[in-house]
Amino acid sequence: MNDAFQVHSDPELWEELGMDVARFSGMPAMLTGAYKNIFLSQHNRPEKMSYFDDMVANIHTGRIREIHDAKKGGKPVIGTFCVYVPEELVVAAGGICIGLCGGAQGSIADAEKILPRNICPMVKSAFGFKVGKICPYFQVVDLVYGETTCDAKKKTWELLDRYVPTHVMEIPQMKRERDKRLWLDEVKDFKAAVERITDTVTDFDAVAAGIRTINAKRFALQRLNSLRHHNPSPISGKDMLLIEQIAFYDEPVRFAQKVHELCDELEQRIGLGVAVAPTPTPRIMVSGTPMALPNWKLHHIIESAGAIVVNEESCIGTRYYKDLIDEGSKDLEQQLERLTERYMKIDCSCFTPNDDRIAQVFKEYEASGAEGIIDYCLQFCHTYNIEAVKLREACEARGIPFMSIETDYSPDDAGQLQTRVEAFLEQIRG
Amino acid sequence: MNDAFQVHSDPELWEELGMDVARFSGMPAMLTGAYKNIFLSQHNRPEKMSYFDDMVANIHTGRIREIHDAKKGGKPVIGTFCVYVPEELVVAAGGICIGLCGGAQGSIADAEKILPRNICPMVKSAFGFKVGKICPYFQVVDLVYGETTCDAKKKTWELLDRYVPTHVMEIPQMKRERDKRLWLDEVKDFKAAVERITDTVTDFDAVAAGIRTINAKRFALQRLNSLRHHNPSPISGKDMLLIEQIAFYDEPVRFAQKVHELCDELEQRIGLGVAVAPTPTPRIMVSGTPMALPNWKLHHIIESAGAIVVNEESCIGTRYYKDLIDEGSKDLEQQLERLTERYMKIDCSCFTPNDDRIAQVFKEYEASGAEGIIDYCLQFCHTYNIEAVKLREACEARGIPFMSIETDYSPDDAGQLQTRVEAFLEQIRG
Ligand code: SF4
Ligand code: SF4
Ligand code: SF4
Ligand code: SF4
Repeated sequence: MNDAFQVHSDPELWEELGMDVARFSGMPAMLTGAYKNIFLSQHNRPEKMSYFDDMVANIHTGRIREIHDAKKGGKPVIGTFCVYVPEELVVAAGGICIGLCGGAQGSIADAEKILPRNICPMVKSAFGFKVGKICPYFQVVDLVYGETTCDAKKKTWELLDRYVPTHVMEIPQMKRERDKRLWLDEVKDFKAAVERITDTVTDFDAVAAGIRTINAKRFALQRLNSLRHHNPSPISGKDMLLIEQIAFYDEPVRFAQKVHELCDELEQRIGLGVAVAPTPTPRIMVSGTPMALPNWKLHHIIESAGAIVVNEESCIGTRYYKDLIDEGSKDLEQQLERLTERYMKIDCSCFTPNDDRIAQVFKEYEASGAEGIIDYCLQFCHTYNIEAVKLREACEARGIPFMSIETDYSPDDAGQLQTRVEAFLEQIRG
Repeated sequence: MNDAFQVHSDPELWEELGMDVARFSGMPAMLTGAYKNIFLSQHNRPEKMSYFDDMVANIHTGRIREIHDAKKGGKPVIGTFCVYVPEELVVAAGGICIGLCGGAQGSIADAEKILPRNICPMVKSAFGFKVGKICPYFQVVDLVYGETTCDAKKKTWELLDRYVPTHVMEIPQMKRERDKRLWLDEVKDFKAAVERITDTVTDFDAVAAGIRTINAKRFALQRLNSLRHHNPSPISGKDMLLIEQIAFYDEPVRFAQKVHELCDELEQRIGLGVAVAPTPTPRIMVSGTPMALPNWKLHHIIESAGAIVVNEESCIGTRYYKDLIDEGSKDLEQQLERLTERYMKIDCSCFTPNDDRIAQVFKEYEASGAEGIIDYCLQFCHTYNIEAVKLREACEARGIPFMSIETDYSPDDAGQLQTRVEAFLEQIRG
């Protein structure tokens, strides 16, 4: 274990960002402890994970300072909470796009002073970060762009707007022609909003560049995920999840390069037969709701129980990178249409019907060589929770071991989850 | 108290409707007991309530037989769950439209065999009625028309479709021009679906007749509600709620006539100074989520505690009847546009932003002479629950006593609610 690892502090920067510095000062130490325990204690990690370890060590200073400086140099920062908000257009306009989904228990109590308790922990965690002024990324954003994907988020944006300018994009609930038209209009509104805040006009070339940059990031993740599918896996599920989380706040060009460097190492490992776990180790695919940083709870339970997670069918996972945008458009209108089409392929459970997702789950199940599916649902997420009924039936029909979990960020149910996961693994081991 | 009152049984009809007769046979007796206790024990009820008492006594036979016979005579029956689905178009096509929202605890366990537990009791109750085959109205419908207003309903329709043909209408989430366009298209789709099942084409005259019929029903309820606002009130909140519930399954022309007869009686009462409760009795307005039959829980608690409910800002309440459709259209297209415009005025919390609702709450608060607001939220209804944050603030800013309640259909929290309601009434009595 790397005992030198430490999540760094930067009280001056935090002060400048208007954070509650007194309160926040304890967080890096907490994160350091958790990270050492969950990540650095793993055996046989790829060396190229060091870049991503650094991204965590510098999460509250290096990367945020970089964004802060870029912002001072004229690059506005836009925060998002959903993979439907097209970051290509932010990059095209010279802005910075960061995902603000909250994965920490520590800010829930702040949110519950205002919001009802029984809504999804992701929404509460994110809202609490802003209300409590304890997330540097939330502090650095110039505006946030929410969407209408779920009831909890849709209505929370109305309240968030009091703390930070919050625009809302309407995501249609079906995928017919009229929905695509509506969404194309929303994409154009988003483009205009980004242009206003960046004080630019993004022409064909700019949009093309934005699409190329984000395509390249997604492609790197595709490559990584398919290497990771190798049996035995050359990288742990926890490390993969971490990289999928970092994808939402790192600089995209550098990130893609670092992912490729890791991929090169994994290819060597595969050639040499180096794996992170002995064969046979039960291979688990996780599906469902996103796990925002630092939510490593389920992966840690699964891998501590002696299995390996081989795929995340999730927005912090394949839903984020499975589809690219066709780069061969001939004009701006076509670019935006193709962008819209790419985004309409995202199979979030907020759509009805959403049977494409079931098909996608099985596609990924096959590709990853998984031996069972654990469907992960953040507590009170109605859409994924109800969709799990269909997913369970479909798995049963195919004889695929399936288990669904509904949980939040509190450690209270960890013991119970561990018992359930262990029983599930026994079933797979047969 | 009317000891002769009895909810009637009709096992033969139930058999014909494919119900679980053995199981359902106990329900009329249960309902009889509850109804006597909650409604018939009230003092000084208007005589014309007898029609509505009969509607309850005959809920499982008279009215359902009437629908069943009409259906045999070629009138298809369409079930709905939301006041957005335009019943005018069903009536125009010669069909019967009935609201299927579930307000009973008895079917929740049936639903929870399939659905997650922590979704709204309305959705679970309705779904459970169908799964358990214990609602004659659910059994008689030819198709149900759901919508995408909330996460729980939107995803449940996908499962309901296995038990009864379920079409889904997309309700937009904002109210801009593009949303209205989308919704006009949905209205036209609905019209076409209704025409298919009724095997008619609804022309200008038919639509005009449908609009007139439903306008007249809504107008009768407006008249009743404004008489009821008189201080002291000539009718209890429970009786008003009951009528608002019956509006969803009674024959609309007869219903409107009976409501007017009651109104005539209330006008006499007001003239004679006859009231249902002494002055001063604290006057409470209820806002929030709908209370579907037989959900009388909160009203019964409030009125048992010595207050009177003077307004329901709810879909089983004013949101159902506050707006009429302009009858002066010159062609079918204009009819549908005006219908669409009328429906877009419904201020359900599924919209964002939804500040018109806050304004409407205060308008009704003034009109009803209420002295405090109890916001009622069905458990796990995220949109109303989060909107309650804004409503509370707005009430506080105006010095209006406000209390919010989140509850389900179980009797478990009745004692606790009673204590809270009593404390709230003490605050109002000052
Ligand atoms: S799960 Fe749905 S709402 Fe959440 S980030 Fe993904 S697409 Fe957006
Ligand atoms: S996990 Fe579900 S409830 Fe939570 S933010 Fe995502 S879609 Fe909404
Ligand atoms: S509260 Fe909203 S979703 Fe429910 S019936 Fe009313 S309009 Fe429909
Ligand atoms: S009360 Fe809320 S959660 Fe329940 S059906 Fe209506 S909108 Fe949906």
